[in-house]
Amino acid sequence: MADRDELAIKYFQCTKRERAVFEAGIKLGTVYHQFIGTPVSASNVDSLERAIEEGVKVQPFVEEVTVKIDRKSLRKKRNEFDYQSLTGPMMDVRVTIRISEIRVFAHVRYVEELKYPLMFIERITES
Amino acid sequence: MADRDELAIKYFQCTKRERAVFEAGIKLGTVYHQFIGTPVSASNVDSLERAIEEGVKVQPFVEEVTVKIDRKSLRKKRNEFDYQSLTGPMMDVRVTIRISEIRVFAHVRYVEELKYPLMFIERITES
Amino acid sequence: MADRDELAIKYFQCTKRERAVFEAGIKLGTVYHQFIGTPVSASNVDSLERAIEEGVKVQPFVEEVTVKIDRKSLRKKRNEFDYQSLTGPMMDVRVTIRISEIRVFAHVRYVEELKYPLMFIERITES
Amino acid sequence: MADRDELAIKYFQCTKRERAVFEAGIKLGTVYHQFIGTPVSASNVDSLERAIEEGVKVQPFVEEVTVKIDRKSLRKKRNEFDYQSLTGPMMDVRVTIRISEIRVFAHVRYVEELKYPLMFIERITES
Repeated sequence: MADRDELAIKYFQCTKRERAVFEAGIKLGTVYHQFIGTPVSASNVDSLERAIEEGVKVQPFVEEVTVKIDRKSLRKKRNEFDYQSLTGPMMDVRVTIRISEIRVFAHVRYVEELKYPLMFIERITES
Repeated sequence: MADRDELAIKYFQCTKRERAVFEAGIKLGTVYHQFIGTPVSASNVDSLERAIEEGVKVQPFVEEVTVKIDRKSLRKKRNEFDYQSLTGPMMDVRVTIRISEIRVFAHVRYVEELKYPLMFIERITES
Repeated sequence: MADRDELAIKYFQCTKRERAVFEAGIKLGTVYHQFIGTPVSASNVDSLERAIEEGVKVQPFVEEVTVKIDRKSLRKKRNEFDYQSLTGPMMDVRVTIRISEIRVFAHVRYVEELKYPLMFIERITES
Repeated sequence: MADRDELAIKYFQCTKRERAVFEAGIKLGTVYHQFIGTPVSASNVDSLERAIEEGVKVQPFVEEVTVKIDRKSLRKKRNEFDYQSLTGPMMDVRVTIRISEIRVFAHVRYVEELKYPLMFIERITES
């Protein structure tokens, strides 16, 4: 990695900490828009959660990720036509970005008082 | 299913066989465009294949589906930045649509002589 | 086109009419899943409709396409956070596929009595 | 906006400047993954650029955005089957995020020496 990141690093006019925050935003924007619209039902929700997690993990600087899709919003399949598409409010995603000693903990989830899925930073640590 | 499909059926100005063919096209168009761009690497390719299959299976009239992502086009992860996005030519998807006694076997795969991924109908059976 | 289509045609184990129906399904599946999730508001709805139409038109066998996004479901932007993502029920898309003398008129729209967006074939003509 | 942002702000455990950087990452991740795979050709490239720009503009905190799709990578349509899908390396997107007096200028473009599309921060200003 060293060589390639050395090449990349000069493009960033910001601190390493800001870069980690930026990467966290990229990951949440990516996961949210890549998977919205995917067909989902009670029968594939587990495999979809795992696939999304693993799709996030292959990306740069991702140390950890957990994806939860709200089961309550998945109804039983009542007939041939009854399936749902994954929507933003169903998703709860946490991702930890790590760049050397800096970790950024970011989260997207539906926030009841706001009435929309909020992407936010829960914590930044350096050590 | 009965009731709802009875309601739906009147919208179709075509034969049942044509409807099955139409559904096959919908499924291939859907799977192809939903998942292109998903981050993929050797480490998540299996789970991604399963997730795509299960995402197709939850849709109406799907009897069978198999998804294969070309391993040869997945290189090892060489550094932090090295990941790939799923592209059309990597995908090989077969789907069987069934509407009562009619089955349509459809396929999308990269065809060397055409130089693009072709969606086509391999077989239609009635029995 | 001739040469390439001659190459492609042998893969299809169906009639030309069925192939046209299949293409119609592909187009509706594609447009539906490609654009769901796109940020939309009253201010960009016109340009989004045109972009979707033109994105469909560049695909094979498309003779005509019209895209309408439901304005009633677009509320005014009330604050910095207030934007919407395009959903299936907002979309009304008609596409005409033509393969030589055959035309297939397909449509996706939200159907009130079904409570979901139905993709269906409105008409097939040969002449 | 005030009220809703007041509600949202408490979720962020970071500085306002970091939040602006985070939003810039979200926007680039979103635009990149939302539009990859969209059918594109010389005939719809202008309208697609405008639609992407307007889709970004409706999102929170976006002050400016410019989208350029590489014309050199768009070949003429040679036959019925010849169309392309938008890929990451074709896109050059700049976005300016503004939160009160802070502006973050972010950019994604294909970088020749890296051989991939890099998302990076070009500048942060406060005034």
